[in-house]
Amino acid sequence: MAISLDQAKTMINVTRAKGREMGLKPLSVVVLDAGGHVLAFEREDGAAPGRFGIAQGKAYGAVMLGMSGSAQMARAEQQAFFMAAVNGVYGGQVVPVPGGVLVRDATGAVIGALGVTGDTSDNDAIAGKAGVEAAGLQAEI
Amino acid sequence: MAISLDQAKTMINVTRAKGREMGLKPLSVVVLDAGGHVLAFEREDGAAPGRFGIAQGKAYGAVMLGMSGSAQMARAEQQAFFMAAVNGVYGGQVVPVPGGVLVRDATGAVIGALGVTGDTSDNDAIAGKAGVEAAGLQAEI
Amino acid sequence: MAISLDQAKTMINVTRAKGREMGLKPLSVVVLDAGGHVLAFEREDGAAPGRFGIAQGKAYGAVMLGMSGSAQMARAEQQAFFMAAVNGVYGGQVVPVPGGVLVRDATGAVIGALGVTGDTSDNDAIAGKAGVEAAGLQAEI
Amino acid sequence: MAISLDQAKTMINVTRAKGREMGLKPLSVVVLDAGGHVLAFEREDGAAPGRFGIAQGKAYGAVMLGMSGSAQMARAEQQAFFMAAVNGVYGGQVVPVPGGVLVRDATGAVIGALGVTGDTSDNDAIAGKAGVEAAGLQAEI
Repeated sequence: MAISLDQAKTMINVTRAKGREMGLKPLSVVVLDAGGHVLAFEREDGAAPGRFGIAQGKAYGAVMLGMSGSAQMARAEQQAFFMAAVNGVYGGQVVPVPGGVLVRDATGAVIGALGVTGDTSDNDAIAGKAGVEAAGLQAEI
Repeated sequence: MAISLDQAKTMINVTRAKGREMGLKPLSVVVLDAGGHVLAFEREDGAAPGRFGIAQGKAYGAVMLGMSGSAQMARAEQQAFFMAAVNGVYGGQVVPVPGGVLVRDATGAVIGALGVTGDTSDNDAIAGKAGVEAAGLQAEI
Repeated sequence: MAISLDQAKTMINVTRAKGREMGLKPLSVVVLDAGGHVLAFEREDGAAPGRFGIAQGKAYGAVMLGMSGSAQMARAEQQAFFMAAVNGVYGGQVVPVPGGVLVRDATGAVIGALGVTGDTSDNDAIAGKAGVEAAGLQAEI
Repeated sequence: MAISLDQAKTMINVTRAKGREMGLKPLSVVVLDAGGHVLAFEREDGAAPGRFGIAQGKAYGAVMLGMSGSAQMARAEQQAFFMAAVNGVYGGQVVPVPGGVLVRDATGAVIGALGVTGDTSDNDAIAGKAGVEAAGLQAEI
């Protein structure tokens, strides 16, 4: 199963709505497919111009390693050189902190990832989880 | 004046609607701000996974050089080595063909660009022009 | 609102004058626009040849993340792997220390950044703040 | 002999004044030292954001190869693959067209280069020549 554009847009809309409900700073939200390629992205007014790369980096590491942002951060805290090496392999595109949310279908297969940035990493992840679940999919933060 | 996220989404929605009306293949559409940074993107179901980079490349050259996709293509046809050199300067991110649409405000200032890919370059540009104009802005294809 | 070239030159002139007044080593000063692109730069006689990149790197991270040099340094000290990852995303262009000064207009919007290098990071930031304020803008160091 | 910052600023000021006198589009002007490193830069209001890289690229090739922009263009027209290979060696930083002006001292030694972009390549070069000569140095376009 692949994430449709309609599902990706639902994820982004609901992530943004959750951010507003929680009173978060302006968010930037990306959805990547199962190959780590961009399906959809939105940057809210007032967010810094470089936020696309951060959102993408959170989601990219999740898809490419099959590890959520929290799991990647745990590994970075244990073994910083490992995540640095991973970044060498992936061209510097991995941002290993919460806000990178793995997206799974009903069978548990990873079908993509959502990346959120703008507030604290933990708040980014909470908003992103709401977005993924609103599309009827499973979120692993 | 800056392009708002609402304007960027209108541009993408109307570009996609125009593509369906014209019977085009699945489109991918990006909107960049005045600094060449991504504001919003959508890739339609059925489009190839690498379309984000092509859409971005069409729009990026337009913003960074202040030249539309058609103007870039004319220069590339006259002096291929010049556009190749430009691409070296910009990290290989420039795709100098139609579908890179300059976005100007009422004063004529460049405030960003829209990039469209999926069908022929000329059809991509026609669809993109409709999108930019629907947001009340001027399109230079 | 965009930073004009005249404002950028005022920022650089006054930053340099402040440096002389404080007895600092030769300074190099860059002004970037709201998209992180270079507006103006000067390297004082006697400064090392590689100073453009350091000045640019201080200002670039400020614009792209919407965080001053001091804020970036605090984050780097807390979570070194995060700022290393950010640098991967931004092509190694970020130098996360004081001397990267966010420039805001009267509404508080980030409209660019000034980067200073040559003396200690803290002295660089003090000189840069004087420059930004001389142009009638708000400095966040 | 090295180009001083005062000389670099004179070159930029006079290049810009010549551009206005000739009725050219907004110019961006860089001065590089004998090692190809940036001394000073100004981008006029209304110029596209990516102009720093083009100006730098014109001047960089001039210094690094000891060939003016016109000489580089002649070589590119004869042997495009050679200039492409040069760009591989120099990290894609060379833009081999007029507007890259070699700067020589009274003994004929290359002490840097000036790069101009914004109008036609030939007009860029004419304006740049005026700037270099105003600083009491020899220009080779």
